[in-house]
Amino acid sequence: MILFDNITLINHDGTVEPHAYVGVEGAQIAFVGKERPAGSFERVITGCGRILLPGFYNAHAHSPMTLMRGYGENLKLDRWLNDRIFPYEAELTGEAVYRATKLALAESFRSGIVSSSDMYYFCDDMIRAASETGAKMNVARALVMFDDRADPAADKRYNEALYTYKHFHGRDEGRILVDYALHAEYTSTPALVSAIASLAKETGTRVQVHVSETRAEHEECKARHEGKTPVQYLADLGLFDTPAVCAHCVWVEDEDRVIMREKGATAVSCPVSNLKLASGVCDVPALFAAGVPVAIGTDSVASNNSLNFIEEMKFFALLNKERHGDPTAVTPAETLFAATRAGALCQGRADCGMIAEGCRADIILIDASGPHMTPVYDACTNVVYSASGGDVCLTMIDGRIVYENGEYMTMDIEKVKAEAAESAYAIAEEVNG
Amino acid sequence: MILFDNITLINHDGTVEPHAYVGVEGAQIAFVGKERPAGSFERVITGCGRILLPGFYNAHAHSPMTLMRGYGENLKLDRWLNDRIFPYEAELTGEAVYRATKLALAESFRSGIVSSSDMYYFCDDMIRAASETGAKMNVARALVMFDDRADPAADKRYNEALYTYKHFHGRDEGRILVDYALHAEYTSTPALVSAIASLAKETGTRVQVHVSETRAEHEECKARHEGKTPVQYLADLGLFDTPAVCAHCVWVEDEDRVIMREKGATAVSCPVSNLKLASGVCDVPALFAAGVPVAIGTDSVASNNSLNFIEEMKFFALLNKERHGDPTAVTPAETLFAATRAGALCQGRADCGMIAEGCRADIILIDASGPHMTPVYDACTNVVYSASGGDVCLTMIDGRIVYENGEYMTMDIEKVKAEAAESAYAIAEEVNG
Repeated sequence: MILFDNITLINHDGTVEPHAYVGVEGAQIAFVGKERPAGSFERVITGCGRILLPGFYNAHAHSPMTLMRGYGENLKLDRWLNDRIFPYEAELTGEAVYRATKLALAESFRSGIVSSSDMYYFCDDMIRAASETGAKMNVARALVMFDDRADPAADKRYNEALYTYKHFHGRDEGRILVDYALHAEYTSTPALVSAIASLAKETGTRVQVHVSETRAEHEECKARHEGKTPVQYLADLGLFDTPAVCAHCVWVEDEDRVIMREKGATAVSCPVSNLKLASGVCDVPALFAAGVPVAIGTDSVASNNSLNFIEEMKFFALLNKERHGDPTAVTPAETLFAATRAGALCQGRADCGMIAEGCRADIILIDASGPHMTPVYDACTNVVYSASGGDVCLTMIDGRIVYENGEYMTMDIEKVKAEAAESAYAIAEEVNG
Repeated sequence: MILFDNITLINHDGTVEPHAYVGVEGAQIAFVGKERPAGSFERVITGCGRILLPGFYNAHAHSPMTLMRGYGENLKLDRWLNDRIFPYEAELTGEAVYRATKLALAESFRSGIVSSSDMYYFCDDMIRAASETGAKMNVARALVMFDDRADPAADKRYNEALYTYKHFHGRDEGRILVDYALHAEYTSTPALVSAIASLAKETGTRVQVHVSETRAEHEECKARHEGKTPVQYLADLGLFDTPAVCAHCVWVEDEDRVIMREKGATAVSCPVSNLKLASGVCDVPALFAAGVPVAIGTDSVASNNSLNFIEEMKFFALLNKERHGDPTAVTPAETLFAATRAGALCQGRADCGMIAEGCRADIILIDASGPHMTPVYDACTNVVYSASGGDVCLTMIDGRIVYENGEYMTMDIEKVKAEAAESAYAIAEEVNG
């Protein structure tokens, strides 16, 4: 057993236990208590000056886009996509995606992210990167379809999604899960939505989808579909009949929130990306009030430009205070729940996202010795508002330490950085000459 | 000479020189070039994997409030002030302020802040802390007056401000500057505003003032003063006849911005604090368009809850993209200028805030070796959007290294943290029993 010895424990719900003992046996949390357990230990990690938390679950990501960090800046959305992102993506290869995903995982581990809901393509290369490094990932092949007469069953991407699910779902003791993904209402046909919905229902698979990210997307959907919002349109086609993870939800309306609650869909707020692309602010208190589960996502680093989950939590907690003119909106405890347990649940990981005996040992430590973490009236408040991204000093996934004090146990970090940079610049060169 | 050897230099205006050589002699930058200078060096600091920037100038702070980090949370503004902050402040002592300021300076150095415009009381204790640690500080005794018949010249606080200016202005080779400070329109009388204005004019002293932080403050001022906004009311009383530093400016109007431009007043945006207290978002693009200089402030950690200037820059850059529905609003280069040169200028430090021969050597290094700083299309974009607070690895003020790789050269960090915590908890105990 690995013992975290006399440590400040903050659980998923923001409760703080200043002198806790947490034991890890294999992939599981085997002990949580206020007294030191008897016995001998494989390793004892002293708690002094550190805080133990459940790891973070990044509920919306496009990991391979790390190659485009800072590549498309200071542009309006259409130019950002059409002049920068799409031409770059057209040159991506499986090897580049593999390297990019490894870089994203290195950054994720350093930020305390243990698992990501990751919608992209070249999924087998993403999975290879996750498998090799011990990461958890809900991988989903993003599906699009523009021709109303096209048959999804004949679509190459659709068949990739089927293949990915069949071959990889549940791999690595369940660390790798495969979801289905509809890119969005505006990039799909009714036939595609229905096909994904039936497929998901057959196998009980989760669905990832972009929903009402921008006002234009939301309003144009209503214009196209007799006043139906993206949530209403997609729900009518059955997409939410299995648990859905709806990224962004910036422009969802009251009726959408009712549908999401009834269908058990999770809203994923991506506060930094939504600001940076000028999409808006997700109304988290309205989702809470409607009983919709809310998780947090970074979106891609092309529009973030980091996977700094502590920073993301601060944006998540603060933006709605201003939006609602109410400093009591979105508390640190609610924020931490969204970052941990809500994220794990929306990934179908019921035994993750909290510190409890029998749960998977997805654990992070935060170094609380910096001057910015003093004094401590409430440790949870300090973690959400005062900590900074680099304070994560240990990340453990399924009982395996993958990052500790700047060292990566499951990857050669210099190689990962060098190879990702090489691919990034080579593609940029290819695109821009 | 200390030589920064073959380093990526990002200057105050966002320009990047990937292979620069920067030499420091005494308190000054003695050399900036693309070729290694000849000669022998006191110390050579290799640039590999690091970025050199001008230090950050925190243009609005209340450093002693570090003791109240996380002390008043999840409360509406009036309860936050009346139930938590004011009763706590009533118990502050000079010694507590000294300890609190040292803690703030430790955090500042670690965040790359070299100087702060700091409005509070027990100014001699604040100055003692700054002097001992080598920090720059524009200290100002916050003045308030509620009785319209009172004579400022007979006021204890007013005389403290005079004393502080007389005894401390220009100390430590100019690192300590003393400004005058009007707390705000709503906490003052016309006689106090006029008295500070004449005093400042006599000596050419700068003025710090809170302006239009909340909508209520702004509207109530107009109701009290025949439609005049705080800027208009204060300008009419002469407060902006010497250079003024106007904190917040969330609710200023077009005419206010014209006055500020004409008077040479600087607006200080405090994005995190303004969100956390639900005050609003400062319209930075409107200030830019009107030609008003804009700097960045953290405000106090009681409403932030950190002095993480890299994080503050990200909030500063992103919030107005959303507000204006325009991802091109507030670029990384504009953000960096606000964080460095604009801050230095509003503190009356014309020879600070940029990397140029003859300027004061206020320099920071950022560790760019983390996975979150790869790839690099534009180093300035990476610093503003991708870096995290803990990436600052060296802070130099007037040629003296005060922080390097977790070590503090001018303070005993464990003692600073312990003593500040002791004072913080003792006062909380005093207040709450």
